[in-house]
Amino acid sequence: MNVTEQARLGKEAWQHAILDGATRKAVLETAAELITEREAEIDRANREDITRSAAEGMSLAMQDRLRLSSSRIADMAEGLREVAALPDPLGQIQKAWTLPNGLEIKRVSVPLGLVGIIYESRPNVTIEAGSLIFKAGNAVILRGGSAARRSNEILVEIMQEALRRYGLDAALIQLLDDPTREGSLALMRCHEYVDVLIPRGGKQLIAQVVEDASVPVIRTGEGNCHLYVDETADPQMALAILLNGKMQRPSVCNALETFLVHKKEAGSFLPMVAEAMGGKCELRICAEASAILGSAYPRATEEDYATEYNDYILTIKVVAGVDEAIEHINRYGTGHSEAIVTEDLGRAERFLNAVDAAAVYLNASTRFTDGAQFGFGGELGISTQKLHARGPMGLEALVSYKYKIYGDGQIRA
Amino acid sequence: MNVTEQARLGKEAWQHAILDGATRKAVLETAAELITEREAEIDRANREDITRSAAEGMSLAMQDRLRLSSSRIADMAEGLREVAALPDPLGQIQKAWTLPNGLEIKRVSVPLGLVGIIYESRPNVTIEAGSLIFKAGNAVILRGGSAARRSNEILVEIMQEALRRYGLDAALIQLLDDPTREGSLALMRCHEYVDVLIPRGGKQLIAQVVEDASVPVIRTGEGNCHLYVDETADPQMALAILLNGKMQRPSVCNALETFLVHKKEAGSFLPMVAEAMGGKCELRICAEASAILGSAYPRATEEDYATEYNDYILTIKVVAGVDEAIEHINRYGTGHSEAIVTEDLGRAERFLNAVDAAAVYLNASTRFTDGAQFGFGGELGISTQKLHARGPMGLEALVSYKYKIYGDGQIRA
Repeated sequence: MNVTEQARLGKEAWQHAILDGATRKAVLETAAELITEREAEIDRANREDITRSAAEGMSLAMQDRLRLSSSRIADMAEGLREVAALPDPLGQIQKAWTLPNGLEIKRVSVPLGLVGIIYESRPNVTIEAGSLIFKAGNAVILRGGSAARRSNEILVEIMQEALRRYGLDAALIQLLDDPTREGSLALMRCHEYVDVLIPRGGKQLIAQVVEDASVPVIRTGEGNCHLYVDETADPQMALAILLNGKMQRPSVCNALETFLVHKKEAGSFLPMVAEAMGGKCELRICAEASAILGSAYPRATEEDYATEYNDYILTIKVVAGVDEAIEHINRYGTGHSEAIVTEDLGRAERFLNAVDAAAVYLNASTRFTDGAQFGFGGELGISTQKLHARGPMGLEALVSYKYKIYGDGQIRA
Repeated sequence: MNVTEQARLGKEAWQHAILDGATRKAVLETAAELITEREAEIDRANREDITRSAAEGMSLAMQDRLRLSSSRIADMAEGLREVAALPDPLGQIQKAWTLPNGLEIKRVSVPLGLVGIIYESRPNVTIEAGSLIFKAGNAVILRGGSAARRSNEILVEIMQEALRRYGLDAALIQLLDDPTREGSLALMRCHEYVDVLIPRGGKQLIAQVVEDASVPVIRTGEGNCHLYVDETADPQMALAILLNGKMQRPSVCNALETFLVHKKEAGSFLPMVAEAMGGKCELRICAEASAILGSAYPRATEEDYATEYNDYILTIKVVAGVDEAIEHINRYGTGHSEAIVTEDLGRAERFLNAVDAAAVYLNASTRFTDGAQFGFGGELGISTQKLHARGPMGLEALVSYKYKIYGDGQIRA
């Protein structure tokens, strides 16, 4: 089916199905059962994807991302149950007031409508994203990576079977039929039916969606994150937060990329950093850091400051103080997560207020920017834009509101 | 100056100026005084615009929209004072919680950043929109209609003078220098610096911005609004709401365009409508209405159902009941304002829930969808999309939030 037709069916299915919370919950619980029941089919489809991708030369690391092992299948089922059990975000009266003319106005949470999601390799996202979007009362069109095509098909088919068991229209949860780049573009431009589009993936995917979409987009997941260590910092705390941010899991968006250090702290602190990380992580450093650590390390360039490595590489820059740190972060950062280590609460507040990012930390690791860590019970991604949702997006980010207004004949004078 | 350079200056000015509420209030109050003091200059600039536009063949009605009469200048000053006096929307702790590991998370309201606004003829919008956006702590780039060029220049200059009196960077409030279509397009695509873009104007302007922008957009002001009169409606109430919605001010976005009536009510009700409106308003009617009212009225087409006339034209359609009314509205509506008149509360709730629009009314006129009517004390437009803000956008729609997270050395396990 072509993209516009799929979107139209999805939107109409959504308009016709105002689902109560109990039904949405039951559909997700049923999907969890079906995933367990149909594990062998999922495994077969997933092996087809991997065999094909391996033949096309996919790296072993990427093949691992693609793999739906038995434990990952169990995790998907468990994830569905967890999303099913979350409190219903719909029908909440956010505000209510009465005008002098007697009109009663209620602002009530409602679904967004038809949500499109474009993502890359991992087929688990089909379940994670699909279940959250559906739990919030939306219809969804999923556009996964072509490598995971067969896996995504079976997973969507399972969710559709769950819908049918409750007499619901399978078009509420669809996989985009058209796997081409043109299909993806058509989805991005289908603002007649698609209410919101969420890209989940690498920098290039996000950039392409932002450039090409006419559907409203929520940008997610670009994380050029910084840690600034102030002159008043506790060195042991600072080092632990730096190591956690850079070394624990460098591939994720809330990992650190650049370390900024106060010039008065640099002389004693940078040698500790070099000793703790030097062997496992490439350090690219500014001229002042070079004067302390020696010329063995490569010099950081403008491009380094602007790069999200997602790897064992750290850029280091010595700064004159909190103001230069703020300046640097606002210039190169992506608005994701930024941290300061200091014992000076005045400087801390200055940093937290002036740094323009979704999550700003005092004396803690940036690695906490995550829906599960925040206690949201699921996450669709981490928004790095300021419209609608910022930071980790849980169910609350997947709803809109409407004004319901009750009168007894009021007209405007 | 070119557009990107202006946007960069605006964003940097915003990043460097974290303004407290008292300063923002004082700037707006000072701008109000300056507008009164400099009335003669505003008048002179505005007359230049009108003389030039008249020579280029502008209609008298459009010339009137362009005119900044003495009373409109006084209204702008008064509007600035009202916006200045609104409660500060920034720094509000929307949520706060503590994680088991001791991290304290606060979700705090912050400005959006640099907001672009593209609008058409009326120069008053320069003050109305500029003041609201600034009150919410944002920087703004205004792109008004070219006919109002000189008027907009003097109004922005006045706001910049107010900024300078408080030692603030004039780049916080700028008029786009480049008046060409390319300049406007460059603003729409400048997502490196512009956080949000709000088009205010006609259907074509909105459509162009939605198609071309890569900056996140808030769509506003498209209003193909409907009234559905159910079989259980009070006919006098229904007629009053219909007349108010269609006839009081047909040029505005919350005015009615299509009237839907239950088939059991149509026989008695449509002749009342024809009698009350027939002389002053063109009626375009469906086949069933034609069977009641006779063949003198033109037949409504698909295009009529999809058109926002903003004029003394009303489309009439007889429907089988509330479900057909909902279906019709969700198909042709623009998600703005929709009303039902009924005494049946079950049907009323069905309508209010199933109709996908920003404001849904029971037994009241759609004309109330307006920031001032809602008590928001100012309005930047009426959002017809579901991301971020829906319905009348007051100050609250012009802010984002950030997470401020306070730790004492927490790292992720």
